[in-house]
Amino acid sequence: MKPKFKRVPKHIGIIPDGNRRWAEQQGMPKESGYSHGIDPGLALYETCVELGIPEVTFYGFTQDNTKRPSAQKLAFQQACIDAVNLLSNRDASLLVIGNTESPQFPKELLPYTVRQTFGKDLIKINFLVNYGWKWDLANGLKSEKPRDDIHKTIASRDISRIDLIVRWGGRRRLSGFLPVQSIYADFYVVDDYWPNFDRSHFYDALKWYDEQDITLGG
Amino acid sequence: MKPKFKRVPKHIGIIPDGNRRWAEQQGMPKESGYSHGIDPGLALYETCVELGIPEVTFYGFTQDNTKRPSAQKLAFQQACIDAVNLLSNRDASLLVIGNTESPQFPKELLPYTVRQTFGKDLIKINFLVNYGWKWDLANGLKSEKPRDDIHKTIASRDISRIDLIVRWGGRRRLSGFLPVQSIYADFYVVDDYWPNFDRSHFYDALKWYDEQDITLGG
Repeated sequence: MKPKFKRVPKHIGIIPDGNRRWAEQQGMPKESGYSHGIDPGLALYETCVELGIPEVTFYGFTQDNTKRPSAQKLAFQQACIDAVNLLSNRDASLLVIGNTESPQFPKELLPYTVRQTFGKDLIKINFLVNYGWKWDLANGLKSEKPRDDIHKTIASRDISRIDLIVRWGGRRRLSGFLPVQSIYADFYVVDDYWPNFDRSHFYDALKWYDEQDITLGG
Repeated sequence: MKPKFKRVPKHIGIIPDGNRRWAEQQGMPKESGYSHGIDPGLALYETCVELGIPEVTFYGFTQDNTKRPSAQKLAFQQACIDAVNLLSNRDASLLVIGNTESPQFPKELLPYTVRQTFGKDLIKINFLVNYGWKWDLANGLKSEKPRDDIHKTIASRDISRIDLIVRWGGRRRLSGFLPVQSIYADFYVVDDYWPNFDRSHFYDALKWYDEQDITLGG
């Protein structure tokens, strides 16, 4: 049953962690976890559309992550490609953001680095692929004309401020996730692994968010 | 009794929130809470020295905070002045960081904006005063020679990477606290208000940190 909320966040960040720990728990090699993270992503997309949440950003993989063993790297790259392709068959405007100048960025995702709407424009989805917080923030340092507003200078400037971050897998840290957009975000941690995604996890996060006092640092 | 830990963080960030809510709970005006946050700061300093923690950063007040009613602003400015003066009678190297070009920065704290050692050099203490994340990050944008490493360009570049952030007052958000240094930090929230500080809160945070798997995004 879909619960009711006084207010829902305008923009939610999703850190889908715990794929490797989930695989190990199942007695499978670590890299097998990532493909089990795709269906949860689609279920989350559907839940957001039902609730009228206007924007969601998924933490796909980072430049830090690409230092992992090659089997894992290939597996999470493929999972991101598959997830984005599946979402392009739904109703959403899609944008992939990350460092495209590195060979770690999957070529298959280049067409999505300019925002495109597929089907009905029901929700904005951003997907971070080969993203790096240093890469993101350093973008402004390269700019020739100095600017005051850091948000307008970063590589991810097309992604808006985030209200709520939900992280699966029990860890209470941001791990480089969009530092500028996350400044005032409320941070909710689900103790279960991402491949065990259940709508109730997400509803619990939204219920908790509903009770928070929003001050934007004031 | 002082508990034992396998490892303690090298650098801890402290967000001492809940002073106003504590005051209201006591039937006092909101601004009365801040002066009750000074003794907890000294107790925390002593605990860190006992445990051999080499660096602590306190979130004093922010540029966002200065938009609050004047009675509150005066009270938290005074509490920061008093706290820094008291710490200068202990054994620590002290550094105050914030936007000194604004009238909101207390003149009394200007001598501390260059790191100074008082007594024995037992711990590095950083105190954020009239700090703003936009101010901090925009510093690099003003630089004439472009740099790759954002940490070297920010106004708070003398503050190192943070391992653990402990926030009192129940809110699960960073509220602009040192975004670059907090990228990989583990984040622990104490549900009690800061003026109710008890060493057990801090020990619980360290016990929790002791069980975390440190990956630095890898």
